[in-house]
Amino acid sequence: MSDPTELRADGDRLLARIEALGAIGAIVGADGSRGSSRLALTDEDREGRDLVVTWMRDLGLEVAIDEIGNVVGTRPGTDPTAAPVMTGSHIDTVRSGGRYDGNLGVLAGLEVVETLERHGVRTRHPIAVAFFTNEEGARFQPDMLGSLVYVGGYPLEDALDVAAVDGPRLGTELARIGYAGGVPCPAARAPHAFVELHIEQGPVLEAAGIGIGAVTGVQGISWQELTIAGQSNHAGTTPMAMRHDAGVVAAEIAVLARRLATELGGHQVATVGRLELHPNVVNVVPGQATLTVDLRNTDDDVLREAERRLRRQAEEIAAAEGTAITSRVLARFEPVEFDPLVVGLVEATAARLGHSTLRLPAGAGHDAQMLARVCPSGMVFVPSAGGVSHNPAEHTDPAELTAGADVLLQVLLSLAG
Amino acid sequence: MSDPTELRADGDRLLARIEALGAIGAIVGADGSRGSSRLALTDEDREGRDLVVTWMRDLGLEVAIDEIGNVVGTRPGTDPTAAPVMTGSHIDTVRSGGRYDGNLGVLAGLEVVETLERHGVRTRHPIAVAFFTNEEGARFQPDMLGSLVYVGGYPLEDALDVAAVDGPRLGTELARIGYAGGVPCPAARAPHAFVELHIEQGPVLEAAGIGIGAVTGVQGISWQELTIAGQSNHAGTTPMAMRHDAGVVAAEIAVLARRLATELGGHQVATVGRLELHPNVVNVVPGQATLTVDLRNTDDDVLREAERRLRRQAEEIAAAEGTAITSRVLARFEPVEFDPLVVGLVEATAARLGHSTLRLPAGAGHDAQMLARVCPSGMVFVPSAGGVSHNPAEHTDPAELTAGADVLLQVLLSLAG
Repeated sequence: MSDPTELRADGDRLLARIEALGAIGAIVGADGSRGSSRLALTDEDREGRDLVVTWMRDLGLEVAIDEIGNVVGTRPGTDPTAAPVMTGSHIDTVRSGGRYDGNLGVLAGLEVVETLERHGVRTRHPIAVAFFTNEEGARFQPDMLGSLVYVGGYPLEDALDVAAVDGPRLGTELARIGYAGGVPCPAARAPHAFVELHIEQGPVLEAAGIGIGAVTGVQGISWQELTIAGQSNHAGTTPMAMRHDAGVVAAEIAVLARRLATELGGHQVATVGRLELHPNVVNVVPGQATLTVDLRNTDDDVLREAERRLRRQAEEIAAAEGTAITSRVLARFEPVEFDPLVVGLVEATAARLGHSTLRLPAGAGHDAQMLARVCPSGMVFVPSAGGVSHNPAEHTDPAELTAGADVLLQVLLSLAG
Repeated sequence: MSDPTELRADGDRLLARIEALGAIGAIVGADGSRGSSRLALTDEDREGRDLVVTWMRDLGLEVAIDEIGNVVGTRPGTDPTAAPVMTGSHIDTVRSGGRYDGNLGVLAGLEVVETLERHGVRTRHPIAVAFFTNEEGARFQPDMLGSLVYVGGYPLEDALDVAAVDGPRLGTELARIGYAGGVPCPAARAPHAFVELHIEQGPVLEAAGIGIGAVTGVQGISWQELTIAGQSNHAGTTPMAMRHDAGVVAAEIAVLARRLATELGGHQVATVGRLELHPNVVNVVPGQATLTVDLRNTDDDVLREAERRLRRQAEEIAAAEGTAITSRVLARFEPVEFDPLVVGLVEATAARLGHSTLRLPAGAGHDAQMLARVCPSGMVFVPSAGGVSHNPAEHTDPAELTAGADVLLQVLLSLAG
């Protein structure tokens, strides 16, 4: 038997699985790049699930499908009482998705299993590879639904009753595609640990020339919708001093959001992604404006400070223009901190394998943040070319994908003993 | 025969005509107010035209319909060689229009004629009451088309070929409603003078407690559409320093436009009426933004300075964010100055009749600015409640409407000798 610390993933095998899964629901981007469109619980998702389950069975994994359609393939350990070390992610995509995203984490998990099998390496803890239902939230809200239900964070019955953006309820679609499993969900027993490999979906690693990200946690998210009620007036006949221009107020708030993020520094980000004027006509002073502000930070205290400053200053701006402002919370999640031991293990393992590393937070949501509620969890990031994701142009170099799988393999081996 | 300087309009008669014309294409506003919807050359416009032409004929006017559908009703003068003193405006409305707007100027012209008839007052110059085709530009572009063709500013054949927003060409619609007249257009002979009574469509007179506005001219108009190309990115995973946020650039330009107007002062106004982001999603940094900037001033030098500053500073803002900016001129009209003698006559006449007066520029376009190309021209403004126009809620008090008609009557008498 080989020295387990010398084991490496087979990049070609991993890439072949990424290719094969990516061919299901294949789409072509504007630049000719190849992506996938497999919205949760559609026929394309079923086809993708069937392929991954076939691979799991071919690798000798015990496949369990739970009541929300999460699929877990388990390779037994040598200690029949030990809880599994779990890895995985999701295989659903956004409507115009890339081929990596969640797929990488699931297929790298299978690559880890295949490497262990081929080299006859046993672990004390079982190793489990999971894919969770509806991570993207593109067809059913909320996102990360499967992993959230898995950890007991959302009632199963409510989740099954969620309606798709195209109509049918989740439970109905789950049964229709044959993935309404019998294993109880939430899971009866928490994993020993959970580690997820994922593309960064941001530009930080590539820009810094770093190969492996040791993810420290997931940013807290604050989404607000602000509505400004001013007075619609003729753009030619209304003197500046007599205006109540909802559009100018919205613009000043967008500029304020940018300034806030810069002032607060660190990992604080602020985005006005949506902005709409009414009536939205060239020669009419806008009478109403709606905008969203997306604030994120790894530090909930700073995030709350950003919210406070935004609220206070937006109210001042609105009042100065003689407009009324109302706000509505669209989403609010506290930051998640991954287990320091897992973060350290990812970092040390990557360094041992000769990869440059950087600790960084995840800016997007991931299944690992849900698993972090019930077991020590962490993530491994590989670079995203140009920071592009949720797009057929999403790309990570094969060498980087393989490096990520190597780190995942060695981290899982360390955790599984 | 009465002393002509003592003649006054009959407010009830004027209001009755406004009511009757407003009932054609009648609509009801959200607050229960009554407006009209008579887009140019629709069946509703025909019905309105037919009613006004009937009134013209009942008053003994000679009705002439020209090739672009302008209608001129003329009351002969005592000097067969004298050119007519013309008044009038338009009777087409925007889709959701009020009952005053152009109608007031046309019907006040008829009221002047009826007053002169009833009192047996003759004038040396003929007095002509006109309504011009498609002033609003809501169905055919450009606006003020009928008066523009009338003064030779736009080729007749091109005007007849303009397509409606709903499809058919102008000439076809003109023939369909029976208003493709035989009188040559452009007009063979310029009027002796042109004076138009109109609601202000802005809040200045009401706010200042003034009854009659002596309009000094029409603001120059500069409409630009700016398009900013940045990079669409994930709002969570993209650090602030790595963004190329087209939305923030658009917002900064909107704030800049406001600041420019304040800095330049005077009659300078600046409006960002339209602003659109792409993809306009809460958690995506906008990759593209489009906004319009409407700049107006009575002084073309200052207007040009505003355009220069906007262009230069917008380019700086865009460059600082690493975005590209392009601009497109949507419209550009130089300011129009009305004849100082006519402006002075309006002001002096209003004062003589006991009305408070204010010299002010028109912020919107009017047929009088086209007539100003060929003859001494001016306008009389009456207040608009709340500055509201192009809306069923458009309102001017009966006493103010009557005051406007009185001033028009006396100004026309002075000009017609």
